[in-house]
Amino acid sequence: MCTVPHPAAREEALGFLSTNPGDPATYEMVAELEDEAVDLLGEIAGLDSPHGYLASGGTEANIQAVRAARNMASTTDPNIVAPESAHFSVTKAAEVLGIELRTIPVDDAFRADLDAAAAAVDADTVVVIGVAGTTEYGRIDPIGALTQIAHESGARMHVDASWGGFMLPFTDHEWSFTDAPIDSMAIDPHKFGQAPVPAGGFLAREQETLDALAVDTPYLETTSQATLTGTRSGAGVAGALAAMEALWPDGYRTSYREQMDNATYLAAEFAARGIETVDPVLPLVAASLAPSTFESLREQGWRISRTASGELRIVCMPHVSRESLNSFLADLDRIRS
Amino acid sequence: MCTVPHPAAREEALGFLSTNPGDPATYEMVAELEDEAVDLLGEIAGLDSPHGYLASGGTEANIQAVRAARNMASTTDPNIVAPESAHFSVTKAAEVLGIELRTIPVDDAFRADLDAAAAAVDADTVVVIGVAGTTEYGRIDPIGALTQIAHESGARMHVDASWGGFMLPFTDHEWSFTDAPIDSMAIDPHKFGQAPVPAGGFLAREQETLDALAVDTPYLETTSQATLTGTRSGAGVAGALAAMEALWPDGYRTSYREQMDNATYLAAEFAARGIETVDPVLPLVAASLAPSTFESLREQGWRISRTASGELRIVCMPHVSRESLNSFLADLDRIRS
Repeated sequence: MCTVPHPAAREEALGFLSTNPGDPATYEMVAELEDEAVDLLGEIAGLDSPHGYLASGGTEANIQAVRAARNMASTTDPNIVAPESAHFSVTKAAEVLGIELRTIPVDDAFRADLDAAAAAVDADTVVVIGVAGTTEYGRIDPIGALTQIAHESGARMHVDASWGGFMLPFTDHEWSFTDAPIDSMAIDPHKFGQAPVPAGGFLAREQETLDALAVDTPYLETTSQATLTGTRSGAGVAGALAAMEALWPDGYRTSYREQMDNATYLAAEFAARGIETVDPVLPLVAASLAPSTFESLREQGWRISRTASGELRIVCMPHVSRESLNSFLADLDRIRS
Repeated sequence: MCTVPHPAAREEALGFLSTNPGDPATYEMVAELEDEAVDLLGEIAGLDSPHGYLASGGTEANIQAVRAARNMASTTDPNIVAPESAHFSVTKAAEVLGIELRTIPVDDAFRADLDAAAAAVDADTVVVIGVAGTTEYGRIDPIGALTQIAHESGARMHVDASWGGFMLPFTDHEWSFTDAPIDSMAIDPHKFGQAPVPAGGFLAREQETLDALAVDTPYLETTSQATLTGTRSGAGVAGALAAMEALWPDGYRTSYREQMDNATYLAAEFAARGIETVDPVLPLVAASLAPSTFESLREQGWRISRTASGELRIVCMPHVSRESLNSFLADLDRIRS
């Protein structure tokens, strides 16, 4: 789910290889760039006065969302509710933070099952997690309904839009801070945002969320730090801002439409070959391939991955061209013939 | 405590701005570079067959050391023991992981008090943390004796050499895996190792430590992930390896000696001006300055920081020249006159 950084992002990143946004009083320029980047991320995610920071990626942002929820709640026996389609970082978050993870099933469209969500939450639930662009099938959970379930039980609502966030503004899906009263979001510039790695994003509607994460910081000329890691990548911050300034919104819209076309094309080509395919909702195609075919493709040099159930999984990121898809299909045909 | 990356490290980093060592089956070259980097870190830290990875920095490595200790222990009421001189990431680790932090005082030489350590540990202590190069005064805790106290109580021993690790091999201090049977270490290439940010290091003596951190990773072509963040910086990994290959051991020795000379010089200059100074043990000088003098120096553009008790704190990193110290002293004299 990573891609080639935008040239402007790459260029910007080079100037910041020795800076650390974790020490904003020393690296003032990076701190200013980060403020601008968070504002722009807020614009993309439908949030007027965003609070947040540039994280190492979706894993950190998901851990932080759960950590904030745990710290803000009064229960001593916290749990979180997330669909089985959630990224494995949710499991990591629960393990790291010592919280029970209640996994709910997905429906036939691979979206979080609402009845199961309603049955899973209780007074000890601190946050419900919905995914806007799942890692395996690129599906978008019913964010509005999940938020209602979360808030009715007194829990917070977190949306993992790590991958989807830079495409969903150009769709009709319900996913953003404007679409529903969600509390926090993971949205990664270094995925479809075409920023250099590492540049993730953690956004919150209220400053209280960041306050719940803050620890005191002696020997820094700022008083507290709300991030999970201490040192962070100035190159990631500068590169993310440069990418967003260059591409939001027109460049991202163009990339999204191109790759959605590529995914639709690829799915149709698989179907035409009698290969069982999961219809793309975002530019991600999953298809059933024999394990031996998968291995042969890897041996040919294709850097492909699989879903948990073993399907071939192709993410049409901005660097994916129609030519490379055709070349892939030609290799696939050769192997299967 | 960061510095300018070595030119070779900078050059190497550029080629890896879109790679993610968190996905080693896709980014095979980065995975190989990381193995080499860990081996070299092991050599520096006195460990023949090191286990570990390149982290975002000392904060992540310290959190991971505590997390591994917690996960490997059987107690349901874990605590950790660390000196008051420990980096604030230890506080963060305890808060994130839900563990009691028992802080012990330091002695007159700013080193962990051994009697206090012995009194603080009990059957629920999962790890004792010693610092090899404290953030405030650059002091080295009595690592051997602390390790004995830790192991006698059934706890693990972690050394935070995030800053000191690239200088201590050229000293007689006891700090490494060879010097004492320590279990894990934080050692950051992006500090005195002159790697680009972010490039921290987490090392463990036994593979079991990494196993205790692993979570399953569906949709990656590797089966588990022992890091705290998911996505990591390929540029950091490649840059760290390039820096270590260029500088270990002669370049680091030269940098250490130069900066130790600078620190000794600076401390003597402060003393000559009647400014109370903490003697440097590693190249770090702390000195008592009036708050107004400190502020004036910052206004002049000096990016300086303070200890928790308000002393001026100057870390002589590899980019610090004698000329810049003299220029600083000249400004100081002007302000104080």
